Amino acid sequence: MSSEKLTNLDRLCVHTITTKPWSIEEIIENYPKAGVKAVSVWRDLLESREAAKIGEQIRGAGMEVVSLVRGGFFTGKTNTEIQTSFDDNRRAIDEASALGAPIVVLVCGALPGQSIHRSIAQIHTGLETLLPYAEAHNIKLAIEPLHPMYADSRSAICTLKTANEFAERFNSPYIGVAVDVFHLWWDPDLQNECKRCGEHGNLFAFHICDWKMDMEDMLNDRGLMGEGIIRIREIRSWVEAAGFTGFHEVEIFSNRLWESNQKEFLERIKQAYLEYV
Amino acid sequence: MSSEKLTNLDRLCVHTITTKPWSIEEIIENYPKAGVKAVSVWRDLLESREAAKIGEQIRGAGMEVVSLVRGGFFTGKTNTEIQTSFDDNRRAIDEASALGAPIVVLVCGALPGQSIHRSIAQIHTGLETLLPYAEAHNIKLAIEPLHPMYADSRSAICTLKTANEFAERFNSPYIGVAVDVFHLWWDPDLQNECKRCGEHGNLFAFHICDWKMDMEDMLNDRGLMGEGIIRIREIRSWVEAAGFTGFHEVEIFSNRLWESNQKEFLERIKQAYLEYV
Repeated sequence: MSSEKLTNLDRLCVHTITTKPWSIEEIIENYPKAGVKAVSVWRDLLESREAAKIGEQIRGAGMEVVSLVRGGFFTGKTNTEIQTSFDDNRRAIDEASALGAPIVVLVCGALPGQSIHRSIAQIHTGLETLLPYAEAHNIKLAIEPLHPMYADSRSAICTLKTANEFAERFNSPYIGVAVDVFHLWWDPDLQNECKRCGEHGNLFAFHICDWKMDMEDMLNDRGLMGEGIIRIREIRSWVEAAGFTGFHEVEIFSNRLWESNQKEFLERIKQAYLEYV
Repeated sequence: MSSEKLTNLDRLCVHTITTKPWSIEEIIENYPKAGVKAVSVWRDLLESREAAKIGEQIRGAGMEVVSLVRGGFFTGKTNTEIQTSFDDNRRAIDEASALGAPIVVLVCGALPGQSIHRSIAQIHTGLETLLPYAEAHNIKLAIEPLHPMYADSRSAICTLKTANEFAERFNSPYIGVAVDVFHLWWDPDLQNECKRCGEHGNLFAFHICDWKMDMEDMLNDRGLMGEGIIRIREIRSWVEAAGFTGFHEVEIFSNRLWESNQKEFLERIKQAYLEYV
């Protein structure tokens, strides 16, 4: 069972990192012109900007802010490192609040050579510490499980199962999960875990791009939808069957696509979205 | 809990692919000189050789044959492709039998764009078809789960859990699992799944190398033990706690290390084995 093709761009959201060469001002100008109605904002674009004002400009241009990307990295060798991460995560929540983003996406962290279980314990402490602050600011936290090829230094949470276990342990409307097809497509349990995630009210976000067979770079060679082998529409049908009604967020890291004309790239994203998502 | 350091090379096995520049004759000459007492033979080295004779030469040089690498690739778009894979797997069993290798290691296959579940069903059919032939030749089949970054075209079996489920479904002394630290280190369930694998008598093989942080190539930039971030000794303690008493097989694909002097590389392997495994 797969979902039907999409017929409009109403639920299309683009991550600012996807058009990395553009400043936030260029994004606010160009996304709406192309008919993009929603954006997830990466924090680097807010540097030396006033988040509240950027939020107003985005909404003034007719777009919705879907999420702020990203917080997390709760792992650390020392208490100082961990304390620094808490401070940074509180700043992320402040920024989301000022920007008017309802969600902060979390890449939860891992330390090279540290045991997965120690990292998972540190992530638990991080979430526990951050949760009251998130609640007080009415900002949701979305744990994003990353592909296991990033388990060395980015995320000890590599499967939807592990992310679901975290969210269920906290059992808070402020802690949920971001499902990204790039990270999770390979998992034979993905459909069941999507269902479980939805049943617990934890399916906060849905990210899309593609997995290229001939990937040249493990980080910055993701594909536009249709360029790779992910059965994106099938996974969309699973998150929809799990009750997800939010945006489909295009998040692509690609040196190749960043080098292309970004206005043309945005048109290609729209075509690929309607064709392959 | 971790195991003690190893104090000798008695359980060291080297895969022929690890010293890829060497022919099987060079391997039979150089491994024993270096004190390596066991070898897993990749099939490409047997081309235009007589497997039985190579087996005799290996044993004559004082080495044991641990496994033949590799069979599998049970997935296919057409019945003809699948039939061809069965034929090739029967040849692998013939070769293992002639060589005197008790095990054939299986990389089970995946097809770009094909659903994981369809690939898993095809793998099941493949194993079912092959099992009687393996039994008749007294050759064990070791399913090797691969890292999820190879799920597009090499293996739909990416976790020890999935491999264990396969082995348990067949419940045959001729179908088990090869645990490779490179593929499985990131999994928070690894220790439990090692235990489960051992309890069912399915832990047939243990492969080692390392995961380099700055990997340049997803296939051929594996690390020598100690060059990366895998807690190899801890994982060895898990397979030993699960009852594994077989060889520790060094299987490294590395353009960088293949370019080095292979005799010196073999010395480095021995040092790294005693220091980090």
